[in-house]
Amino acid sequence: MTVDFGTRTLPYGVFRPAGHDPRIGVAVGELVLDLSDLIDSPAEFAQPSLNAFMSRGPSRWQEVRSAVTARVAAGVEAGQGGVYRIQDVEVLLPIEVADFVDFFSGIEHATNMGHILRPEDKDPLKPNYRSLPVGYHGRAGTVIPSGVDVVRPSGQVNTADGVAFQPSARLDIEVELGYVIGAPSQLGTPVKASEFRDHVFGVVILIDWSARDIQAWEYQPLGPFLAKSFATTISHWVVPLDALDDAWVDGPAQEPAVLSYLQTTEPRNPDILLEFELNGKVLTRPEAGLLYWSPAQQLAHMVRNGASLRTGDLYGTGTISSFDQGAMGSLMEISWGGTKEIDLGAAGSRTFLQDGDQVVLRATIASDPTRPLGEATATILPAIAE
Amino acid sequence: MTVDFGTRTLPYGVFRPAGHDPRIGVAVGELVLDLSDLIDSPAEFAQPSLNAFMSRGPSRWQEVRSAVTARVAAGVEAGQGGVYRIQDVEVLLPIEVADFVDFFSGIEHATNMGHILRPEDKDPLKPNYRSLPVGYHGRAGTVIPSGVDVVRPSGQVNTADGVAFQPSARLDIEVELGYVIGAPSQLGTPVKASEFRDHVFGVVILIDWSARDIQAWEYQPLGPFLAKSFATTISHWVVPLDALDDAWVDGPAQEPAVLSYLQTTEPRNPDILLEFELNGKVLTRPEAGLLYWSPAQQLAHMVRNGASLRTGDLYGTGTISSFDQGAMGSLMEISWGGTKEIDLGAAGSRTFLQDGDQVVLRATIASDPTRPLGEATATILPAIAE
Repeated sequence: MTVDFGTRTLPYGVFRPAGHDPRIGVAVGELVLDLSDLIDSPAEFAQPSLNAFMSRGPSRWQEVRSAVTARVAAGVEAGQGGVYRIQDVEVLLPIEVADFVDFFSGIEHATNMGHILRPEDKDPLKPNYRSLPVGYHGRAGTVIPSGVDVVRPSGQVNTADGVAFQPSARLDIEVELGYVIGAPSQLGTPVKASEFRDHVFGVVILIDWSARDIQAWEYQPLGPFLAKSFATTISHWVVPLDALDDAWVDGPAQEPAVLSYLQTTEPRNPDILLEFELNGKVLTRPEAGLLYWSPAQQLAHMVRNGASLRTGDLYGTGTISSFDQGAMGSLMEISWGGTKEIDLGAAGSRTFLQDGDQVVLRATIASDPTRPLGEATATILPAIAE
Repeated sequence: MTVDFGTRTLPYGVFRPAGHDPRIGVAVGELVLDLSDLIDSPAEFAQPSLNAFMSRGPSRWQEVRSAVTARVAAGVEAGQGGVYRIQDVEVLLPIEVADFVDFFSGIEHATNMGHILRPEDKDPLKPNYRSLPVGYHGRAGTVIPSGVDVVRPSGQVNTADGVAFQPSARLDIEVELGYVIGAPSQLGTPVKASEFRDHVFGVVILIDWSARDIQAWEYQPLGPFLAKSFATTISHWVVPLDALDDAWVDGPAQEPAVLSYLQTTEPRNPDILLEFELNGKVLTRPEAGLLYWSPAQQLAHMVRNGASLRTGDLYGTGTISSFDQGAMGSLMEISWGGTKEIDLGAAGSRTFLQDGDQVVLRATIASDPTRPLGEATATILPAIAE
């Protein structure tokens, strides 16, 4: 499956023509434009990741985007020098991931999960939820590109018969976006929310694979660990923020008012609609515009303690969800903790993922479905036999 | 401060002679032996980190250690080619950290913290504690070498007057060891506890800086984040496991019996004694031999879900502590949640760290105090003014 990005989005990725080294390209329609051919800067573009280019910062990003836009305007056809059909090349993981942080910024998701997991609590949200963007660090080394199969993890699960070691029986996805840091920052110097565009290069679609039964047993008191660390899938093509300039929306009102370092004046969230497809059936369409905490707020919070940013840092939004079943971002929510079967038509029904299931997340500009932003897909393989 | 490692430990580090590029060295007494001079393999030793060398695996590690041992036996003196005084060179961060995981494997620490933080709970330990090594991912990008100052972090704190943004008033340390992965593993293929020596290159002393007040407010439900991510200090010199062959001890009995993937037959823990000094006064001497979960068990658990190991992955033991105040591993425990002043003599008293305080952790073989294993130190700088 390839995405026809048209000529306006111009996302960046890493690809390998048969028999050649990886290099950086831009996807245009069904073609890929070889930047190591178009721009004579091998230290940036004859590279196996976007990192060196991303580290250069916003003025370089705009300069290169202008050059690519001009080249595309001049007409791009397969067979020209430096132009390939995407289907003829191997597309790779676009970035070398430095640190990976995952947030929890979908308030509908957090509320749904509170109701499902802690029905005895009066408030499904923890007291800190509206005060700060809750987040945690994940495993950078297991971020994989779209198309790589995901092996069902095994682990410790607390069953009615005691603690057992078994393949996860509650394997789930979380529908997310991920933001990629281009320009780094210094240790000890926080980055302001208003400096978001100085550091963040672009956005990817992100699948946060989650083994709910492993998580339920392991997570006290230090949070998720093996339930998440086996794999995180991101889309092949990084959409630069410059491609989203006209596509930002206000997020939900924030009450109580947030602390000053989290205050922003611009529209907070990207106007992105996701589509969660399982075995060919679209199950839900979550909207990123609804997220409680925006990517600029997440960024400002993440380094407010003086932590540095590195080129290649990746941070996920957290599950993008809804109180409406048709826009929820995880099977845990759609099946309401596994209590409701989800109808897949000829493919039967599901609560959680079965072996062989194929997940696809797609994204477009919400207000303009003709502008796709990519996809992330994977097929579930059976757990390794013990 | 430099450590006189003698001639048996032969730890590896990265150093820069004045006016030259960084390269890999071995510390011998007060000298450092330049491996890029001793061994003609620039792709391994004329490098700014140990990673390329560590990735080669155990047979290479032993080969190089043999060559270094022979060179040292022949006599090493300052002024010889490739031999420097440590005091004349700049010693740098020894590894490029891939993923950083921190465990919670000191059962006395976990018990103390449970009593302090959740006095209403009948059992200070969570139900999973004896079933698996609880752990979480930390921030790899803020691992810093010994000697770099630590700026007091500011963050959100839940006070009697509501949520405030302020410098942490409960800045603490956790006394730990860290294990460094040399040889990587494949995604989807778990590593067994018995394969510990095939993958782990060596050990460092680790200070897990912790802002207790920030952590108390942020950690629900996904664990520590900004309370830990501002800095983690490691010692300059990585002690290879080959230097510890005679220094392993049985850990405490594990009841109930652990699952098969966590079972080990050899002595589990390194026989390492740590020393926690604050402003020149030794406060406590925690013993790594007491840790409930061993480094081989931590390793096997960390990747039992199929996660891969990368060269440069670092995992911390968790706080090494005791029920005896003289061997506790954090100020939170020594001051019992800030309720008891800790006497520092002429330097006054403390509950948590004050600006200007200097922390030193040192380690030796417990049964042989003449074999030092390094030190990690830092001075606390005031929070950045808002």
